[in-house]
Amino acid sequence: MTETHTINEEEIAKRWQKFAHVSPYNRELGLLPHAVRTDWCVLKVEYQEALVGDPQTRVLHGGVITALLDAAFGFAIFVKLPEIRPMATLDLRIDYLKPATPGRAILGGAVCYKLTAELAFVRGAAYHDTPDDPIATAVGIYMFTSGRPVLRNEDVPR
Amino acid sequence: MTETHTINEEEIAKRWQKFAHVSPYNRELGLLPHAVRTDWCVLKVEYQEALVGDPQTRVLHGGVITALLDAAFGFAIFVKLPEIRPMATLDLRIDYLKPATPGRAILGGAVCYKLTAELAFVRGAAYHDTPDDPIATAVGIYMFTSGRPVLRNEDVPR
Amino acid sequence: MTETHTINEEEIAKRWQKFAHVSPYNRELGLLPHAVRTDWCVLKVEYQEALVGDPQTRVLHGGVITALLDAAFGFAIFVKLPEIRPMATLDLRIDYLKPATPGRAILGGAVCYKLTAELAFVRGAAYHDTPDDPIATAVGIYMFTSGRPVLRNEDVPR
Amino acid sequence: MTETHTINEEEIAKRWQKFAHVSPYNRELGLLPHAVRTDWCVLKVEYQEALVGDPQTRVLHGGVITALLDAAFGFAIFVKLPEIRPMATLDLRIDYLKPATPGRAILGGAVCYKLTAELAFVRGAAYHDTPDDPIATAVGIYMFTSGRPVLRNEDVPR
Repeated sequence: MTETHTINEEEIAKRWQKFAHVSPYNRELGLLPHAVRTDWCVLKVEYQEALVGDPQTRVLHGGVITALLDAAFGFAIFVKLPEIRPMATLDLRIDYLKPATPGRAILGGAVCYKLTAELAFVRGAAYHDTPDDPIATAVGIYMFTSGRPVLRNEDVPR
Repeated sequence: MTETHTINEEEIAKRWQKFAHVSPYNRELGLLPHAVRTDWCVLKVEYQEALVGDPQTRVLHGGVITALLDAAFGFAIFVKLPEIRPMATLDLRIDYLKPATPGRAILGGAVCYKLTAELAFVRGAAYHDTPDDPIATAVGIYMFTSGRPVLRNEDVPR
Repeated sequence: MTETHTINEEEIAKRWQKFAHVSPYNRELGLLPHAVRTDWCVLKVEYQEALVGDPQTRVLHGGVITALLDAAFGFAIFVKLPEIRPMATLDLRIDYLKPATPGRAILGGAVCYKLTAELAFVRGAAYHDTPDDPIATAVGIYMFTSGRPVLRNEDVPR
Repeated sequence: MTETHTINEEEIAKRWQKFAHVSPYNRELGLLPHAVRTDWCVLKVEYQEALVGDPQTRVLHGGVITALLDAAFGFAIFVKLPEIRPMATLDLRIDYLKPATPGRAILGGAVCYKLTAELAFVRGAAYHDTPDDPIATAVGIYMFTSGRPVLRNEDVPR
């Protein structure tokens, strides 16, 4: 991978962040781009007491994992498109494999593995260290809704 | 339905709320019991700017719907059990049918339609007025984890 | 329900059967319309040794349940449309709750609970006696593919 | 990979086939082991007129894809275990990405990516040439049911 690509990935991450942080909900979760590759986009959520589901175990709430994966899916589709297009989650399936470790940040990685004019198919995983030891895995389908692009990616040098 | 049942339902709702509100994440979402029946338990989330996903449309974030349904599933299992047992979401599938209306509260209803020694099968819907006009529908499987009951329901008169 | 409606339902069932039995796979399974209502369409598969999954238990193969539900989904969408439109299964989720009883026929019921210009959302169940005691439950999304209608329902008196 | 491993894989494939072909339904579909690796087990179904779903397009019935993937999931779990244990499909989600090409065989590949005392988590894909260009993708959870092993793998040299 060349230097030029790395710079562009940073640009795309910034662009996404600017777009995503308009959302109060995303801001509250504090989701941050962690890695940008067309075959694996990663967002990160830091451990926060406010996101705990069970105070006894101090494990983060399952809803945080879901929101992280949903956002990572949007991010993974975004990097495959020339622009941000309005889209809606059509469906989502999440399998929970083990509890997150209290005190540790969680990564949410995703890839858009099929893209048509109307639909985007994605899969991903939430994990601490590697997708091969997942906290949760997920698949989803997103549908592009009618309307003009929200933000064009073509201004971002690739 | 008799007066006695109504009172017990209130007791169960209070009991659940006390348990659920220990969770900072649930507190932040402000989930409240709305109706308690063994065949349809309903939680409510009020419209809040902090939970908005897209400031332009003012539609609540999809993650809120998911968290609402996940909590309603837990509630629906709780009313079928003699005690609160430690359990984990095994998997969840959500279908999104239409955007929530900005400014309106969302109800999340659920029923635990099959219960075994190890598993609970649930289905539910998120909606404004009636489950027949859903914002989202969902199914899930929960697994009881080993360990003693967290809270007994048997002290709650039924 | 009036006599007239009953007759039309029979017509719709015949029409569907004619269409469905063009498929060798459906013929082999021997799927038959059992009941036709816009809110619950039911197909039936008789117990057959050739469809057994495990000779020791004599339980029908899980794939039979899936095929039955997939067909019932198509049937449930068909009764809601003025014509048979070409469509494709987009996704399917099936939860298996208990084994089918050897020697008994299985019913597959379904309802198309949301219909848009592009998509049909369905849910259903496989059972012996009643959907409330299911062998399996399922949800799915079907997508209408471009092209002209395969068969018009409008010729069928309603 | 050594010669010895290749031989064992053949042994495992034979062993599985012997077990699977006891099922009339599997025999009818004519499922055959195509490749055996603990990280990707592949079954094959040849194109057959009897399995066609739509005679006009000559595309195989979706139920064939589902049955293929369900069997591949069982195969993928089998190679990870020291014995064949009685188990049941708990749930299955399938995403259909494109129609199968008429006249061509279909491969169903799968991996068991998480195994606990009670559950097996699997994912897989149906395809003609490569899993990267899938006809369908799938995830599922299987549950080990009580009872003794059906067939021990330990007699198979590894």
